[in-house]
Amino acid sequence: MQLLSPRNVRLLSRGRSELFAGGSGGGPRVRSLISPPLSSSSPGRALSSVSATRRGLPKEKMTENGVSSRAKVLTIDTMNPTVKKVEYAVRGPIVQRAMELEKELSEVLNERSLCLHIFISKPFAEVIKANIGDAHAMGQQPITFFRQVLALCSYPELLNDSTFPEDAKSRARRILQSCGGNSMGSYSASQGIDSVRHDVARYIKRRDDGVPCDPDNIYLTTGASDGIVTMLKLLVCGEGATRTGIMISIPQYPLYSAALAELGAVQINYYLNEQKCWSLDISELQRSLDEARQHCNPRALCIINPGNPTGQVQSRQCIEDVIRFAAKERLFLMADEVYQDNVYAEGCQFHSFKKVLFEMGPEYSNTVELVSFHSTSKCYMGECGFRGGYMEIINLDSEVKAQLTKLVSVRLCPPVPGQALMDLVVNPPQPGEPSHEKFIKERTTTLCALAEKAKLTEQVLNTVQGISCNPVQGAMYSFPCITIPEKAIKEATDNGQKPDMFYCMKLLEETGICLVPGSGFGQRDGTYHFRMTILPPKDKLKILLTKVKEFHQKFTQQYS
Amino acid sequence: MQLLSPRNVRLLSRGRSELFAGGSGGGPRVRSLISPPLSSSSPGRALSSVSATRRGLPKEKMTENGVSSRAKVLTIDTMNPTVKKVEYAVRGPIVQRAMELEKELSEVLNERSLCLHIFISKPFAEVIKANIGDAHAMGQQPITFFRQVLALCSYPELLNDSTFPEDAKSRARRILQSCGGNSMGSYSASQGIDSVRHDVARYIKRRDDGVPCDPDNIYLTTGASDGIVTMLKLLVCGEGATRTGIMISIPQYPLYSAALAELGAVQINYYLNEQKCWSLDISELQRSLDEARQHCNPRALCIINPGNPTGQVQSRQCIEDVIRFAAKERLFLMADEVYQDNVYAEGCQFHSFKKVLFEMGPEYSNTVELVSFHSTSKCYMGECGFRGGYMEIINLDSEVKAQLTKLVSVRLCPPVPGQALMDLVVNPPQPGEPSHEKFIKERTTTLCALAEKAKLTEQVLNTVQGISCNPVQGAMYSFPCITIPEKAIKEATDNGQKPDMFYCMKLLEETGICLVPGSGFGQRDGTYHFRMTILPPKDKLKILLTKVKEFHQKFTQQYS
Repeated sequence: MQLLSPRNVRLLSRGRSELFAGGSGGGPRVRSLISPPLSSSSPGRALSSVSATRRGLPKEKMTENGVSSRAKVLTIDTMNPTVKKVEYAVRGPIVQRAMELEKELSEVLNERSLCLHIFISKPFAEVIKANIGDAHAMGQQPITFFRQVLALCSYPELLNDSTFPEDAKSRARRILQSCGGNSMGSYSASQGIDSVRHDVARYIKRRDDGVPCDPDNIYLTTGASDGIVTMLKLLVCGEGATRTGIMISIPQYPLYSAALAELGAVQINYYLNEQKCWSLDISELQRSLDEARQHCNPRALCIINPGNPTGQVQSRQCIEDVIRFAAKERLFLMADEVYQDNVYAEGCQFHSFKKVLFEMGPEYSNTVELVSFHSTSKCYMGECGFRGGYMEIINLDSEVKAQLTKLVSVRLCPPVPGQALMDLVVNPPQPGEPSHEKFIKERTTTLCALAEKAKLTEQVLNTVQGISCNPVQGAMYSFPCITIPEKAIKEATDNGQKPDMFYCMKLLEETGICLVPGSGFGQRDGTYHFRMTILPPKDKLKILLTKVKEFHQKFTQQYS
Repeated sequence: MQLLSPRNVRLLSRGRSELFAGGSGGGPRVRSLISPPLSSSSPGRALSSVSATRRGLPKEKMTENGVSSRAKVLTIDTMNPTVKKVEYAVRGPIVQRAMELEKELSEVLNERSLCLHIFISKPFAEVIKANIGDAHAMGQQPITFFRQVLALCSYPELLNDSTFPEDAKSRARRILQSCGGNSMGSYSASQGIDSVRHDVARYIKRRDDGVPCDPDNIYLTTGASDGIVTMLKLLVCGEGATRTGIMISIPQYPLYSAALAELGAVQINYYLNEQKCWSLDISELQRSLDEARQHCNPRALCIINPGNPTGQVQSRQCIEDVIRFAAKERLFLMADEVYQDNVYAEGCQFHSFKKVLFEMGPEYSNTVELVSFHSTSKCYMGECGFRGGYMEIINLDSEVKAQLTKLVSVRLCPPVPGQALMDLVVNPPQPGEPSHEKFIKERTTTLCALAEKAKLTEQVLNTVQGISCNPVQGAMYSFPCITIPEKAIKEATDNGQKPDMFYCMKLLEETGICLVPGSGFGQRDGTYHFRMTILPPKDKLKILLTKVKEFHQKFTQQYS
């Protein structure tokens, strides 16, 4: 019967037309494809609906040709439960609302006639995004030399262009020579371009006053996030009380909590000491570890230095103590050092975990397992969009290293332009080279501006009653503590909103300023914060800080 | 006592020197860091070694200051077991050996004096890599227009350069305007740059003869692999008999098996019909599904069209039948369509699953859940290194879509240069624009060369007794069936090697040709194949094919 249905007639004729069009073995294909469903569909369907009921899936009203008003295969109830647990505040609801507002503004602004209306309808003319460390989006200029080399690598015909400096050309030639077919369009080795890994190793050795670095321990990554998730993936195993636990600071950068949720690992919180400028206390590490050992298997300790979102810079002493703690407690150390050039405060200095580890002698440098992450996205270059990064692994078991190399090979390779950019970051113009002076000038300008804005942010915020802000020693963020009146807390809770989300949402709607509530990073119960980048241009940052100040005063008044 | 040990004295003095250097709150830091370990280390250690024994970890010989000859935290026995199951033949042992050989050759060639020696020591002067679809590495030239725009976007000063065509400049301006701060160095929206997603939607609508496409259903990705893994991640849930099963073709592209292993999903194999030019039989789909339903919960069906590694192009009829099958059996469809421009065989044509789905009427187009993947890495552009790609989701549950958007936001965004490149692929020079003619010429040249090489490969391989090769209708690979003599099979098995790995390894060592054994993609038991790309330049491809022919004859002789 089915064979005579209009549908099947249509199939046959289609099949034929293909056949007559000389379709690639279309003839046999057509025959083979028209018969099987008829012969096998009934048992198949029977079986499927049996198992459907067995699995308690929604029953389906079958029509004569076996299709129906179908329930979806993939729903919120049948999707991967670990994915549902993932949260990422830096791009959460508040940022989505900010994007909506931007859209509304631009749409209205595009219609002159309505220009007036918008200033009536909204108390602000632009949205200022201080939610994410996105330097170029905030107007920071790229390093000229880096972009010249990237242009040369993208379009090598430019190597004949006399307007490009020679050092840019020689860098480009060197990068292209290490690409298959001299093209950035080729896959690189999965671990990253050989010559780039060698340059990274030389950079690390320079940075760490001669501590040796083996290029074979360098893996280029798609931004630091990629490397962090990959290493966490290797570490996760066990079930129940032996499930892998990973220690992360609170406040933390939510990539960590998100990755741990997705991997089903246990998140072990240790709290930074806000009273001591977000410093890390070993006693707190010990407390959180000892508690965690009761219900999981703590295997790794993650440190972000300079700190995100908290902006502290760890002393050499602290790093040494952390390493000793990790050694004593047999923890794998993960050092997120993507802000290594972002140190502003008087007397603060970046110390890499690698360097300190090796200065502690073979008892530590031969045993403690450490991975350090870096990126092209932060520091003075702020090239987030290229997704460049690397990680250095130290004392990783050789069999595990082989597994790591295999694992990264599945994704083929990190983006090659990002690898090229990483190469330039670790191998910038040298004294005597034509681009050196300009490079130094550009880098210094950016870092000085950041230092100035770090100070400004701390100073202004601390003039506001009900806001207290630690010095922004490094990185790109301030994470001030804000006092939220009881009334506001109640109103928020009644709306099922976290009080600091309630605060930031109001701030956004009333001032157009987009910050991230502290609850997205974690904070001690009963305390409230927001993360604010120091990246907006100075004039805009001043406006922003004034608006925050005014808003906070108004908000406090309104709810007290 | 410990407090007086040389180590602690060193700590104190270090702490002080920092303090005197005016170290950022170094004072309190130093104090706080020197005391805790002493007060808390003993209980901590006690506890930790207790739980260590509870977990059966290697006991440690503790020295007085709490460190020791430590066993590694992360070993092959304590790492993530799912990662260990991952395999990826395309970059497996044979490719690593090929890279070693390349290195040896280049090293020797760098020393003229030894030049002779190398030809004695190795029967070949170069390694020819036909293991991976890496077009530029095989000498294919990039599309000039694409690289011009990328150079302009990388270094916008070039917008003032009169040598660049106007259409390249206008494309670059448009891309930069949609980047934060007009820089590719900014993060984009996690789903991808807005204007690029709109261009992709327009491209799909054009490609599919007017079938509507909503930019909001487009997600830009880091190559197609990223999108595929992300969608699989959403689908995986359940345990034991309700564990998610995913249907993949055998032979398959090993990204799928690797991702399923890593996600702990059940791999459900359906076999392509080698006798019918690697066609897909619905009856075989039904068989594999019915068997799988006994032990897991099959939820998705993955199709690669045009086929990798098998090079077939599916008829419209077959696609329609697959969609009907997926509808009937409630399977989520994943269509890997990255080779959509790579169709060579007479009468073959690419039909997108999306287009066929919508032509089947609302009964299907409103219900069947489909995701389609595309990439900048294949087709005529072959820009693998930029890791550009997109996926289009159809009929995805809105709550799941929100979860997807959240999930991709954790990785911030796909590489922006890859997004820019994807934009150019879907929005190339138009008739009348200055770059149109050149673009068409370059694209046609590449695709014609591929078609010619596809034919050549099939023809030559089929002249070899013991090798039979289906027509390479599309994609970039041939996957011929090879007869391996019993004696060789035995020798291989005795060496614990798969016979086709044994074959390919010998081929590499004797000829310098790098192919991937069929076992890396899956094949029917007792059959052997290799995957060979058709990408080498024609002259090199001829040499390669001749060498393979001679090797196979010699190999057969040697082992019969």
